[in-house]
Amino acid sequence: MRTMAFDYGQRHRHELAAAERISRAMGAAEHRVVRIDLRQFGNSALTADDITVPKDRDESQMSTEIPITYVPARNTIFLSYALAWAEVLECDDVFLGVNALDYSGYPDCRPEFVESFQRTGRLGTKRTNFTVHAPLVHLTKAQIIRRGIELGVDYGLTHSCYDPDADGRACGRCDSCVLRQRGFAEAGVPDPTRYAG
Amino acid sequence: MRTMAFDYGQRHRHELAAAERISRAMGAAEHRVVRIDLRQFGNSALTADDITVPKDRDESQMSTEIPITYVPARNTIFLSYALAWAEVLECDDVFLGVNALDYSGYPDCRPEFVESFQRTGRLGTKRTNFTVHAPLVHLTKAQIIRRGIELGVDYGLTHSCYDPDADGRACGRCDSCVLRQRGFAEAGVPDPTRYAG
Repeated sequence: MRTMAFDYGQRHRHELAAAERISRAMGAAEHRVVRIDLRQFGNSALTADDITVPKDRDESQMSTEIPITYVPARNTIFLSYALAWAEVLECDDVFLGVNALDYSGYPDCRPEFVESFQRTGRLGTKRTNFTVHAPLVHLTKAQIIRRGIELGVDYGLTHSCYDPDADGRACGRCDSCVLRQRGFAEAGVPDPTRYAG
Repeated sequence: MRTMAFDYGQRHRHELAAAERISRAMGAAEHRVVRIDLRQFGNSALTADDITVPKDRDESQMSTEIPITYVPARNTIFLSYALAWAEVLECDDVFLGVNALDYSGYPDCRPEFVESFQRTGRLGTKRTNFTVHAPLVHLTKAQIIRRGIELGVDYGLTHSCYDPDADGRACGRCDSCVLRQRGFAEAGVPDPTRYAG
């Protein structure tokens, strides 16, 4: 197993340290960080300093439209790099943690997107059996938390917040924090996340 | 009209200067060069110094298998960035110069790949009418040369060689040079390319 993370100019680059910790904890043979500049395109609260991350939205607000935290074509770019690496490794299987059920309205977290990318990857490379696995795509956040507990995940290593403070503490108020907190609450699992303030 | 080129660690980075010249000659509103590191994956004669570019192959050799000049998932990565920029610009139309007829056997130059990427782009972004145009995809090299002449292209600005010398002169012997030369010859158009030696 190998892992790949993207340093794309995200506001929450704290997640890169978390990705590396998790990769090591899971015994990955290699962890690769790809630097890509998505700040040149901006247009998202995650990659443009002059756009603020929305806070304290309730779930009805989250489900009505694609939020400003959406990063244009991000998962397509991520999967393209994973496809390139898979081809070089002569590997067919890529795993992606997207979630369509409790999601924030991102088009590139839907199963039809994942399936279409898989087809594109099969047609665009030598890997005609290339497969994108998205094991979390149909789960609720609570189901994800429970599945992780079953598999021995230490959630203290993980990070979800879009707008952490300088010490990496989660804001507790962005969509990502709100959904994560609700997941822990509904799963009945203690939330080990370090929150600011 | 805007143009996009990729500095991906290619051996023939001379093409980047050509892309900029052409963009300026065509009056593009903006020319953007995206830096992406495909050398980290290697595995191609175009991105790995220890793999040489094949020379003096005849066309029967070119059509039998995917050659070592194939760069893993390159066009998928290129199109992903174009998709991101198109979305930010609120633009639906991306044009790509791939060619499936006189091609060197690259899977990501085929129309079925282009159509699949278009579908992936529509599903993965807000641009549900996103369209990838590949106006050269079904033309022979000779037809491409003639079409360019009709449209006023100065072929002296263009570059095809995979392995130019330090002065940017074409080798005349790689697959890309061989196909280009044949195209000019069959079209009955003088070839303005500067060849080495």
